[in-house]
Amino acid sequence: MTTPLLDQIEFPADLRQVAEADLPQVADELREFLLQSVCATGGHFASNLGAVELTVALHYVYNTPDDHLVWDVGHQSYPHKILTGRKSRMGTMRQQHGLAGFPKRCESEYDAFGVGHSSTSIGAALGMQVADQLQGKPNRHVAIIGDGAMTAGQAFEALNNAGDMPNTNLLVILNDNEMSISPNVGALPKYLAQSVMRDFKGLVKSAKSKSEKMLNKVPGMMDVAKKVESKIKEAVDGSPLDPHVSLFEKFGFDYTGPIDGHDVALLVKTLKQLRSQSGPQLLHIVTKKGNGYKLAENDPVGFHAISKMDPAVGPIKSTKVSKPTYTQIFGQWLCDQAAADARLVGITPAMREGSGLVEFEKRYPDRYFDVGIAEQHAVTFAGGIACDGMKPVVAIYSTFLQRAYDQLVHDVAIQNLPVMFAIDRAGIVGADGPTHAGAYDLSFMRCIPNMVIAAPSDEQECRLLLSTCYQLNQPSAVRYPRGSGIGAEVGTDLHTVPVGKGVVRQQGEKIAILAFGSMVQPSLQAASVLNATVADMRFVKPLDEALISELAASHDYIITVEENAVQGGAGSAVLEYMARQKICKPVLNIGIADVVTEHGDPSAILAELGLNAAGIEASIREFIS
Amino acid sequence: MTTPLLDQIEFPADLRQVAEADLPQVADELREFLLQSVCATGGHFASNLGAVELTVALHYVYNTPDDHLVWDVGHQSYPHKILTGRKSRMGTMRQQHGLAGFPKRCESEYDAFGVGHSSTSIGAALGMQVADQLQGKPNRHVAIIGDGAMTAGQAFEALNNAGDMPNTNLLVILNDNEMSISPNVGALPKYLAQSVMRDFKGLVKSAKSKSEKMLNKVPGMMDVAKKVESKIKEAVDGSPLDPHVSLFEKFGFDYTGPIDGHDVALLVKTLKQLRSQSGPQLLHIVTKKGNGYKLAENDPVGFHAISKMDPAVGPIKSTKVSKPTYTQIFGQWLCDQAAADARLVGITPAMREGSGLVEFEKRYPDRYFDVGIAEQHAVTFAGGIACDGMKPVVAIYSTFLQRAYDQLVHDVAIQNLPVMFAIDRAGIVGADGPTHAGAYDLSFMRCIPNMVIAAPSDEQECRLLLSTCYQLNQPSAVRYPRGSGIGAEVGTDLHTVPVGKGVVRQQGEKIAILAFGSMVQPSLQAASVLNATVADMRFVKPLDEALISELAASHDYIITVEENAVQGGAGSAVLEYMARQKICKPVLNIGIADVVTEHGDPSAILAELGLNAAGIEASIREFIS
Repeated sequence: MTTPLLDQIEFPADLRQVAEADLPQVADELREFLLQSVCATGGHFASNLGAVELTVALHYVYNTPDDHLVWDVGHQSYPHKILTGRKSRMGTMRQQHGLAGFPKRCESEYDAFGVGHSSTSIGAALGMQVADQLQGKPNRHVAIIGDGAMTAGQAFEALNNAGDMPNTNLLVILNDNEMSISPNVGALPKYLAQSVMRDFKGLVKSAKSKSEKMLNKVPGMMDVAKKVESKIKEAVDGSPLDPHVSLFEKFGFDYTGPIDGHDVALLVKTLKQLRSQSGPQLLHIVTKKGNGYKLAENDPVGFHAISKMDPAVGPIKSTKVSKPTYTQIFGQWLCDQAAADARLVGITPAMREGSGLVEFEKRYPDRYFDVGIAEQHAVTFAGGIACDGMKPVVAIYSTFLQRAYDQLVHDVAIQNLPVMFAIDRAGIVGADGPTHAGAYDLSFMRCIPNMVIAAPSDEQECRLLLSTCYQLNQPSAVRYPRGSGIGAEVGTDLHTVPVGKGVVRQQGEKIAILAFGSMVQPSLQAASVLNATVADMRFVKPLDEALISELAASHDYIITVEENAVQGGAGSAVLEYMARQKICKPVLNIGIADVVTEHGDPSAILAELGLNAAGIEASIREFIS
Repeated sequence: MTTPLLDQIEFPADLRQVAEADLPQVADELREFLLQSVCATGGHFASNLGAVELTVALHYVYNTPDDHLVWDVGHQSYPHKILTGRKSRMGTMRQQHGLAGFPKRCESEYDAFGVGHSSTSIGAALGMQVADQLQGKPNRHVAIIGDGAMTAGQAFEALNNAGDMPNTNLLVILNDNEMSISPNVGALPKYLAQSVMRDFKGLVKSAKSKSEKMLNKVPGMMDVAKKVESKIKEAVDGSPLDPHVSLFEKFGFDYTGPIDGHDVALLVKTLKQLRSQSGPQLLHIVTKKGNGYKLAENDPVGFHAISKMDPAVGPIKSTKVSKPTYTQIFGQWLCDQAAADARLVGITPAMREGSGLVEFEKRYPDRYFDVGIAEQHAVTFAGGIACDGMKPVVAIYSTFLQRAYDQLVHDVAIQNLPVMFAIDRAGIVGADGPTHAGAYDLSFMRCIPNMVIAAPSDEQECRLLLSTCYQLNQPSAVRYPRGSGIGAEVGTDLHTVPVGKGVVRQQGEKIAILAFGSMVQPSLQAASVLNATVADMRFVKPLDEALISELAASHDYIITVEENAVQGGAGSAVLEYMARQKICKPVLNIGIADVVTEHGDPSAILAELGLNAAGIEASIREFIS
């Protein structure tokens, strides 16, 4: 029996004491540890399994933390966390006050750059490299980016910039697993797949010998050799390829690869060479998402992120019947609306599953467009579609719409084009934390002319407001929260409601609560104790001004409640209207505080922010006291 | 003497009646007309001269307006406007109620997509093509994009998407003039230049014969032949190139070119072929910015856009001594601050001239980074630099910061990194119109945690606030307007002021005007008539809350004035604070109205919006009456 090695490794300095020949064992133990810990906590899964050997090799060769590793997106950073002093805390992953699911600068000096959104790593690492070289520091910087993230424009912008700095010692590692969260789309991934086919012949030997040494403790080990062999077969049958110059060389990078990203020895050898070279380098490695765990290998989309599960059998099935999520409500509405209107086109920037478009794609493949991790393009593309008589619906998370803000303004709103945004994950997102917070969309959309903005208070309202905004001949957005609502019964029709009109849900006195979207339900609960009036405002823009005037005239206090930053949000819109009307009355704006909200259980975070029934009640009591 | 042809052409249908052999004459007349009209009105110049032959060929071959031409950015669209029913209105170019400087959907059915920002054309044209094909319409769509605009990530995202749609009949024309507004940077333009060197041999004959036929009436005709010859010479001396597969073919496009973009006959022949082909096509043409006008050819940066001028001698020199612009104030401060602090790094996304970085680049070339038309990357790159001990200053227009909104949130603000944004063209921009409006930055930045936002009221304040924000250890923005200020004397020191503190500039009674940035001066004028108090708030975030409380306590009316959308802007912040403090007092928010502001003379537009002294006075009088 061999002596366990991972037990003796707390930090990369410990790892560097291990003999090079023993690194495969470290990788095997790391994979086993990772498997057990993610099964216990849930979290991002398949990407992490694919990055085990790479992580071992990087920390072995590079002088971290002085050398910086910038993990793109961060879905693959758990092995990195385990090797950088956080092994004992892996059980707190993505829990409140526990480890973040992504690298985070304030969590560890080994986390060089905070991530969460894709395709930032090359630019950030380039900036660090430039800063260090200007200061005469010899540190090296490595960006590790997946083939999916490489399809975003920002990655291209950074490549274009770095490739033109021949004296900048940047290493970009393209971790090619032929996937983003969903399978990749676009021309670049196809190109990469062809490169792999072409060049993988030289790898077959190393991969085969490696496969024999592979960990057998974990159910269903990957067989790299098989993959490689099938690739070669494809290559032989495939069309001839440019034999000389890779895409990345055209961008001014020295190109190495593709090499087997599960061969630690080969990775160490290659990285040692690259670390001593100058100028921009690109290393293309091929890995398998879910590597070493058969269930995840076979279903990398399903195993992208998991809940707690039993490693031997897979996800633990919940016994309680769960309510449909808003994402599902949207997905169902989209199919129904598409059946009723042949002009409807559905667009997603690489979030088919997350945005609820799986069924739509199946039923309307011609009208379904996954444009890749390309939010900017998604929105301008939708603008073009709207110009020519079709009706695009862009399904996008609030946090990712930030990436297409200029396109929303410049290509859609200024031209007053009928593009509808179905904005998921608006408000607090929970375990994903601040990088994914949907806390700003009301503020950043409200200032844009021509926009209609709706915020549904339950599932049926969501359907109503989607149908309503879809009918408009101007830009519109329906923003709804992550997860499920109260379980309201949802119709099957496509009824609409008047634009810019709210509904009084509960009549009380003295206190009028103007509640927006997800905050209507907790407001109703708070109001029942306070005997307050509650209006479900439905629309943030245009506001129901008549209703506000009426409620202000008949109540002593106006309270606004929203799951968005107070700064510039829906409550702010109410203040602006009241000022315009010279209505001088005490107003309390309840919303997300002006600080970075950390990760954790959504309901706990909402409670901390005072955005549940008890918190709303307490805030109102304090205000009127 | 030949019969003039352009006189008989109002619309493309007229052009299509011209014999193909006469098209060079049409192009020559068009260039002459263009030259005279731009000299008379001012406007974008060099790009338009470069696009004359292409425009003639496109409208000749394509069935516009059913076929759509999407001009990227639109700096090259004047010849298109002349040929599409707007010849007689060219004298109104960029003037209020006159023609817009960019294609604009509401101006003409021939303007398929409104532009202004770069790199949207491929995605928009792809969307149109998809929409038409879904509806069974046979129309063709063409995106015309410069090599500069091709460096932006959004263009790449669209290429990646289009290249993966083999049945989509899109034509992308890469108009390669080796320039954006500034000379290009980055690896892609280098690659393109190499392609041109390699492939231009075959063009020499056609180009030479063409050059002999060229228009001699206009001073300084281009000599394409000379350019081509020198290219060939470079190619012979240069390094060998990938002979088989162009970059664009790797992206799934059929590639044609490079061909001479000033040879109408060749363009017509090539476009006819391409119009009948299916799938994504890329045509690479080479043109010369400023073609046909020697002064512009020799100085395409200086002649990118011009004021009125005498075509024979060049720009008409103004006799009055002009005040320095805010851009110049920033440029001078940047040099001074860089001299005092070796950590300062200056970053621009391809706007060296517009952002005032020419002198900084000369003096501190190692600390100057033009990253290309790549706002997203510019901001993340700055974030990386800030991580490693240097102090980045990102010089960017307000409207272009919209392109980097997610990076501002995700890469800078959440991590609380000390990146400073010097935001030029904040507020009304005048002739460039709505696509370039800097009307939203206060709203979209104010909701972001950790941000400090300053708005200087004159040139010296600008310097003070730049120095102040630069010293901070957190994200900050200084936003200043286009053009010059009041001519305040500007110091040479690097003094700072307290963060979040305003200054009472004028003491009056009853009415307190809280003025922000550019609106302080007109507020002072209005206040002197009204005997109102005026505070120069200096900071939008954090607000000077003590000052607001004090002024609210001692006055009957609070007036906020800003050159930003009222929705979520600085005045909204004042309302939020007063609500929090339960200060119930009439507040009037003066700012940019919630409509798309059209192009025109900035002072006329400000007057229309009520954002000059008279307008502010009138609004206040109405409010207090």
